[in-house]
Amino acid sequence: MAHINVPEGVPGIRSLVMFRPETGQYLYELAQVLLRGESTLTEAERELIAAYVSSRNDCHFCFSSHAAAARCLYGNEKSVVDEVINDAGSAPVSQKLKALLNIAGKVQVLGTEVKHEDVAAARDVGATDREIHDAVLIAATFSMFNRYVDGLASFTPRDPAAYDEMGVRMATKGYVLPTKK
Amino acid sequence: MAHINVPEGVPGIRSLVMFRPETGQYLYELAQVLLRGESTLTEAERELIAAYVSSRNDCHFCFSSHAAAARCLYGNEKSVVDEVINDAGSAPVSQKLKALLNIAGKVQVLGTEVKHEDVAAARDVGATDREIHDAVLIAATFSMFNRYVDGLASFTPRDPAAYDEMGVRMATKGYVLPTKK
Repeated sequence: MAHINVPEGVPGIRSLVMFRPETGQYLYELAQVLLRGESTLTEAERELIAAYVSSRNDCHFCFSSHAAAARCLYGNEKSVVDEVINDAGSAPVSQKLKALLNIAGKVQVLGTEVKHEDVAAARDVGATDREIHDAVLIAATFSMFNRYVDGLASFTPRDPAAYDEMGVRMATKGYVLPTKK
Repeated sequence: MAHINVPEGVPGIRSLVMFRPETGQYLYELAQVLLRGESTLTEAERELIAAYVSSRNDCHFCFSSHAAAARCLYGNEKSVVDEVINDAGSAPVSQKLKALLNIAGKVQVLGTEVKHEDVAAARDVGATDREIHDAVLIAATFSMFNRYVDGLASFTPRDPAAYDEMGVRMATKGYVLPTKK
């Protein structure tokens, strides 16, 4: 049971933004522009960064839902999602995405962990300032979402099928504020 | 120097939201509603929670600026800010604020650190669901801001006087998106 009186049976962050839509609207709008807005990183790559950070923060709800969204967006190449989560270094993704995942992993620990060399390495394989910025902000944003969802013990489904459905909705509809019942 | 090409000499998060206002606007609106919106927690108490989390994340910019804002808002009682940062348990603040700081400190580590007993203890000294929610979200939000600001190595003034001025502005004007020069 959640730590506070949120709508029952509504999973994860949705129950929290229904409890407090005044803050929830900005959380959803931030996710929408970061993960679905105009970018030279694909939506699949951005969802994968979100899932990677959430996995490292041990947030079952955020990891499972964003990994499902990433799998849906990767389509036939969906196996890369679990390969990156298991070992980003050896996964069959671009050198640029690997460099951005390295930065995101450091941000997950703490911002000061990101060193000049990490950024230079990303730039060497073609990452732009905007891509480096977005990788840092996605990692920082999920360090927030993960703490929000678990800090209030929001409802976390354990059936993997629940996340497949969620992933399809997230991949196709994006981040739309739930309305109160 | 910052890791990416942001406006020079603009401190902390302001330089980052000027680089990317599409995401910055939601970050500022979130801060405004959380720290200045309608609440049974005072603005001083909310700024103190933000400063407490930022101190624990070793984010010099966020800690110094939000501690300065909290001191400005506490007025004659401003010494409580440093007393809380040094030792929240013995500081002369209400039992309710101590219980919320305890929860915020656990969220700073990771969401799953918050236990049923922490929430029950806060409720026992009068904290409402909305106050518990907001303490968790402030702590989660600053876990994001701290990582964003330090993850991109944004300009961090070292002169304490710079923060006094910033604190007054934050306390009196709130969180208003900077416009591009």
